[in-house]
Amino acid sequence: MRALLSVSDKAGIVEFAQGLEKLGWEIISTGGTYKKLSEAGVKVIEIDEVTKFPECFEGRVKTLNPYVHGGILHKRGDDAHVAQAKELGVEGIDLVCVNLYPFKATIERTEDFDEIIENIDIGGPTMVRSAAKNFNDVYIVTDAADYETVLAALASGEDTYEFRRDLMIKAYEHTAAYDGMIANYMNKRFNNGMGEHQFITGKKVFDTRYGENPHQKGALYEFDNHFTENFKQVKGEASFNNINDVNGALKIASNFGDEPAVCIVKHGNPCGFAIKGDLLESYTEALKCDPVSAFGGVVAVNGVVTKELAEKMNEIFLEVIMAPDFTAEALEVFDVKKRLKLFSQGGGTTLKMAKDAQDFKHVDGGFVFQDSDIVNTAEVHNAELKSSNTASAQEMKDLEIAWKVAALTKSNCVVYVKDSAMVAVGMGMTSRVDAAQCALKKAKEMDLDVSGAAMASEAFFPFRDSVDTAAAAGVKAIVEPGGSVRDDEVIEAANEHGIALYFTGVRHFLH
Amino acid sequence: MRALLSVSDKAGIVEFAQGLEKLGWEIISTGGTYKKLSEAGVKVIEIDEVTKFPECFEGRVKTLNPYVHGGILHKRGDDAHVAQAKELGVEGIDLVCVNLYPFKATIERTEDFDEIIENIDIGGPTMVRSAAKNFNDVYIVTDAADYETVLAALASGEDTYEFRRDLMIKAYEHTAAYDGMIANYMNKRFNNGMGEHQFITGKKVFDTRYGENPHQKGALYEFDNHFTENFKQVKGEASFNNINDVNGALKIASNFGDEPAVCIVKHGNPCGFAIKGDLLESYTEALKCDPVSAFGGVVAVNGVVTKELAEKMNEIFLEVIMAPDFTAEALEVFDVKKRLKLFSQGGGTTLKMAKDAQDFKHVDGGFVFQDSDIVNTAEVHNAELKSSNTASAQEMKDLEIAWKVAALTKSNCVVYVKDSAMVAVGMGMTSRVDAAQCALKKAKEMDLDVSGAAMASEAFFPFRDSVDTAAAAGVKAIVEPGGSVRDDEVIEAANEHGIALYFTGVRHFLH
Repeated sequence: MRALLSVSDKAGIVEFAQGLEKLGWEIISTGGTYKKLSEAGVKVIEIDEVTKFPECFEGRVKTLNPYVHGGILHKRGDDAHVAQAKELGVEGIDLVCVNLYPFKATIERTEDFDEIIENIDIGGPTMVRSAAKNFNDVYIVTDAADYETVLAALASGEDTYEFRRDLMIKAYEHTAAYDGMIANYMNKRFNNGMGEHQFITGKKVFDTRYGENPHQKGALYEFDNHFTENFKQVKGEASFNNINDVNGALKIASNFGDEPAVCIVKHGNPCGFAIKGDLLESYTEALKCDPVSAFGGVVAVNGVVTKELAEKMNEIFLEVIMAPDFTAEALEVFDVKKRLKLFSQGGGTTLKMAKDAQDFKHVDGGFVFQDSDIVNTAEVHNAELKSSNTASAQEMKDLEIAWKVAALTKSNCVVYVKDSAMVAVGMGMTSRVDAAQCALKKAKEMDLDVSGAAMASEAFFPFRDSVDTAAAAGVKAIVEPGGSVRDDEVIEAANEHGIALYFTGVRHFLH
Repeated sequence: MRALLSVSDKAGIVEFAQGLEKLGWEIISTGGTYKKLSEAGVKVIEIDEVTKFPECFEGRVKTLNPYVHGGILHKRGDDAHVAQAKELGVEGIDLVCVNLYPFKATIERTEDFDEIIENIDIGGPTMVRSAAKNFNDVYIVTDAADYETVLAALASGEDTYEFRRDLMIKAYEHTAAYDGMIANYMNKRFNNGMGEHQFITGKKVFDTRYGENPHQKGALYEFDNHFTENFKQVKGEASFNNINDVNGALKIASNFGDEPAVCIVKHGNPCGFAIKGDLLESYTEALKCDPVSAFGGVVAVNGVVTKELAEKMNEIFLEVIMAPDFTAEALEVFDVKKRLKLFSQGGGTTLKMAKDAQDFKHVDGGFVFQDSDIVNTAEVHNAELKSSNTASAQEMKDLEIAWKVAALTKSNCVVYVKDSAMVAVGMGMTSRVDAAQCALKKAKEMDLDVSGAAMASEAFFPFRDSVDTAAAAGVKAIVEPGGSVRDDEVIEAANEHGIALYFTGVRHFLH
């Protein structure tokens, strides 16, 4: 049996070759891999001996050769194939171990287009695809993590059709991801990121127990190891809906630097948020906004969860707590809560985000794709004052919080914030004034005093009615994008009520 | 100059070859393409003459050869490459025209795994990728739609680096899509559709003017030509948000067979829905549910829009109307509405859906992926009666409508339907009882009589409060999944109020 080893990432390759040698395999190799193996004392056949043709054009052509690909592709169980191989002097290659030129590392390192082009691997993917096609007779190894398993399978000598088939699937995943990355890179560089094809490639993190509902299968896929590196299931397993809710909560809680922000989410939308003197106080205030919705909710905490905070959180049933980290004492406190799930980012003191540059949404028959929306502090700080009254320093802070939360809440939404805590929120509704009113109705039921609050709307008010509603509740400052044909009426309403009104000029629809 | 033509889909290839010949190009070809070109009188060099090696293993190895790939890959502007090419007897191949074995057609036609494997093209993608890498010197043509443009570019003799670069990008898109399709197929067949990698590949339908907001770029991508074939922009251009809203409206309006259903959507959620005797009546009733939200809304109509319906629709400002088709008279009526957009499916009398088997949602750092949710009539018809009272025939119809609309509305949601028209809806809220109450508050403002209505909740009622709220408004029948630990209390409440209560056993969270 003969194995062809030609790897760009050489980690573990010597041990793998030695393992193959021990099992009686002959090793064929190319360029750098050949050198490394020879130096380690592995007996290696140089690729030229197989190809009967020199490596040429600075390595652009090495393995694109019928002796290599005939050796891989002929069917061992087909007499005609075997006879033809013999006649042509084509010898079998029964295992191919290849990983590809590091295109990703290259585009992260340089913008030099010649260098980038040179790092598009041609021979590698061809061997991978070729060996995968003939997986019935050939092992295709594309991942160093598989070296040991492959050696064990070869040593056992069992019939391992399923094993080879799994390697085949992995191989086509490898080449698909590689070319998807190349195409996306080219489209980002030359077509504004909106090329004729868009490739969204995810690596599985884990299967969820089910999808949004029990009759749907579900799984989480990641880009660039984001979840593998930043999402630790400390206690309990994340459901499909947990991941969605955590996403909503994380986006909001991580949006205020290292401030002690706490966000409570249900069905992807916030039902509590505050930034007070410390996390305990923030959580306590966040909970007051809507303790009914918070029941079974998902909480993101922008800081390490301590024993004190844990004790407070244990007072009601929460489904998920997400934080950069938990102290050992906090974990002990949570121990009694059997259904509570704890997810951390494995360390640090503030929440980390991947900050994907692009965003997408499935629609039946395809998807819409866009630049990600980003909301920042400057939008409020640079907002244009449209009223005679101005906001106080605390009102300005409340406006900033309300604005960011509104930007990250499903449209239509309005958010009321007082003393750095959300006191009312209306979201996801078809009518903006309904959202404004329902929020206030709820606040009243909760006995929350909205007077003196700041209010934000993620899109302009089409009419003055939402301002009138806010004024009646005692709102003192409002921020919204502006841009309605009736802005004048809205400004007039603000002035009538003595409200400080700011226009950001930026809309944040979210659906 | 020499061109290598090797295509699986032979449409237009003869004309392309003749065009090349006319421009003085030599043509090299393989197997079926060679035969077809020869028969058409094109002078063709057989690939064997280039490779100096016979085609072998039933065509598995034809072009995987250094004379082919050296011919493609050597840099014409590099003296050492040129000298080496001369020394090795490698002649340049300056244009590669390849399209791939029809993997997709094969998996649609057969489940025979050997046949499917045989239809994984190895030589083709290699030539495509090879020529794309050397696009500085080589034209790579992968799409018959480009034949004319390429001939024109060659004839013009201009410097066309950007043109070749665009062909290169298209080439890598082609191979990425091909391997993504193979990997997804294998994962569907062997890994339940949830493989280690997931590849979501979309083909651009059009750029939208912007994304969800003006500061975001956006575009629509499709699967399997769904939008190209079923989405015609009859009047106006679809925005990013229009597409999302149309998606929401279509799903609901298309869910009742050929019944004359009309759905009005705002921000992805329904604010009006009815199925009456005809489309005009359905639209009229749908509009009553929330005419304020319907202003600037998106309407999906499950039938051809006639003059009469158009006249009625013109009474308020709608942003989008989506229908299978519009009569010529209807289009005339709409002519006066400058901002109204009309999208059709280019014919037919009922709305068509792609019905994607799988669904996904972006979360920061990756995406969640799941089987698509499907809601069907049987869920209501087979629902378990839990109360002493039963629903009348009309109530049963109302329950069916309420259930389906609720399943396709953002959670938490409750939907009230009376005489086949939605009369109240609460959606997208963090609390179910708030959604139930806000819906009724709105109905009251709209002077809509909810008494006698049926009500649906897409997930179970955690408490009896929503039932009490519904009863106070005169609701007579309720459908929900059941499954709460307090189901007994919910059933008790229904019996107290004389409400017919049904449990489907199926939940339809939607976020």
